[in-house]
Amino acid sequence: RPVCHTKPQPGNRESVGCLYSCAQCSLGGVLIAMDTAPWALDEKPEHEEVCEFRPYTCPCPGATCKWHGSLEAVMPHLMHAHKSITTLQGEDIVFLATDINLPGAVDWVMMQSCFSHHFMLVLEKQEKYEGHQQFFAVVLLIGTRKQAENFAYRLELNGNRRRLTWEATPRSIHDGVAAAILNSDCLVFDTSIAHLFADNGNLGINVTISMC
Amino acid sequence: RPVCHTKPQPGNRESVGCLYSCAQCSLGGVLIAMDTAPWALDEKPEHEEVCEFRPYTCPCPGATCKWHGSLEAVMPHLMHAHKSITTLQGEDIVFLATDINLPGAVDWVMMQSCFSHHFMLVLEKQEKYEGHQQFFAVVLLIGTRKQAENFAYRLELNGNRRRLTWEATPRSIHDGVAAAILNSDCLVFDTSIAHLFADNGNLGINVTISMC
Ligand SMILES: [Zn+2]
Ligand SMILES: [Zn+2]
Ligand SMILES: [Zn+2]
Ligand SMILES: [Zn+2]
Repeated sequence: RPVCHTKPQPGNRESVGCLYSCAQCSLGGVLIAMDTAPWALDEKPEHEEVCEFRPYTCPCPGATCKWHGSLEAVMPHLMHAHKSITTLQGEDIVFLATDINLPGAVDWVMMQSCFSHHFMLVLEKQEKYEGHQQFFAVVLLIGTRKQAENFAYRLELNGNRRRLTWEATPRSIHDGVAAAILNSDCLVFDTSIAHLFADNGNLGINVTISMC
Repeated sequence: RPVCHTKPQPGNRESVGCLYSCAQCSLGGVLIAMDTAPWALDEKPEHEEVCEFRPYTCPCPGATCKWHGSLEAVMPHLMHAHKSITTLQGEDIVFLATDINLPGAVDWVMMQSCFSHHFMLVLEKQEKYEGHQQFFAVVLLIGTRKQAENFAYRLELNGNRRRLTWEATPRSIHDGVAAAILNSDCLVFDTSIAHLFADNGNLGINVTISMC
């Protein structure tokens, strides 16, 4: 809980020092500069949400698995509890989502291993806006945010004289899929576009990971 | 109007010869193979919709201009009646859409000249699905469908460690913007994505035309 010792000055939006205490890391009773106005901290305890020492939850979309643990335990968890997820080796692979016309909200998940790291590829079909189904595709690193910044990924849909490409930095599984979808900070396309690129209800997404 | 001399056979979906008459071109009383079932022709006179000899309408989006004429007359019409549309020369230009946060349905239009042809660049903001505003960007050739097939275009949004790219064949102005948007056969992105790439409410789209 942040404790603010600065009296709020109406209209003052500058950073100020606040006495802040995090249960997960070493920020206990430390005076730190917060980049939000101090009187907003109670509604938005930003540090706790992004704290690197917060336990990792299971990165599988859908949130049916309640597992959480350390970063090192994530891959063993996935291999034991989510055996159905296939893994492909290499920087440049094809993520084949089958039966994209299945009704309702659907997730497709696979793992890609390269550069001595594991990446989770997620395609999610959902109605972010009522009555308008969309697909969201994103790459997560099984790693910290800082590690993720060393990589870039490219998702590519290839069709008949058409190509749609999204290039970005992988998300850390600490942020998760939901945050990327909420901000549309991923490859977003609707069902008409999916049909332009799908073949017999199957959609191939070319995924390329690179170091930067 | 197509006139069918083949008695419909229930369940028979094969192509058959039909006596077809088009007011715009030479297809008058010609027996041609239609690729739809003959008894569906009255509801969907496909040829007339796509006939290359149909007069061209003004390609400006919004449909407030009622002009129509021959293909050769389109550019003179644009230059005289739509003086506010700017033209940039070159295969690789930046289409700068200003004030993308303007409320309601908005169009941004400009011309690009290269390879001895004129291309119309259109960015349209509209609610294709109620309550969900989206942007649609497409390149049209001031020319026939056959001419358009000789070209490819690339639209690129560049942001902070993010890039969204759409590559396709330009549309002929004979098809128009509305058809591309209806099929999502264009660069489609929502307002959250626009904000990821916009700078101070202005969105720069890199447009590259190439011959193929
Ligand atoms: Zn902490
Ligand atoms: Zn799990
Ligand atoms: Zn005709
Ligand atoms: Zn006009």
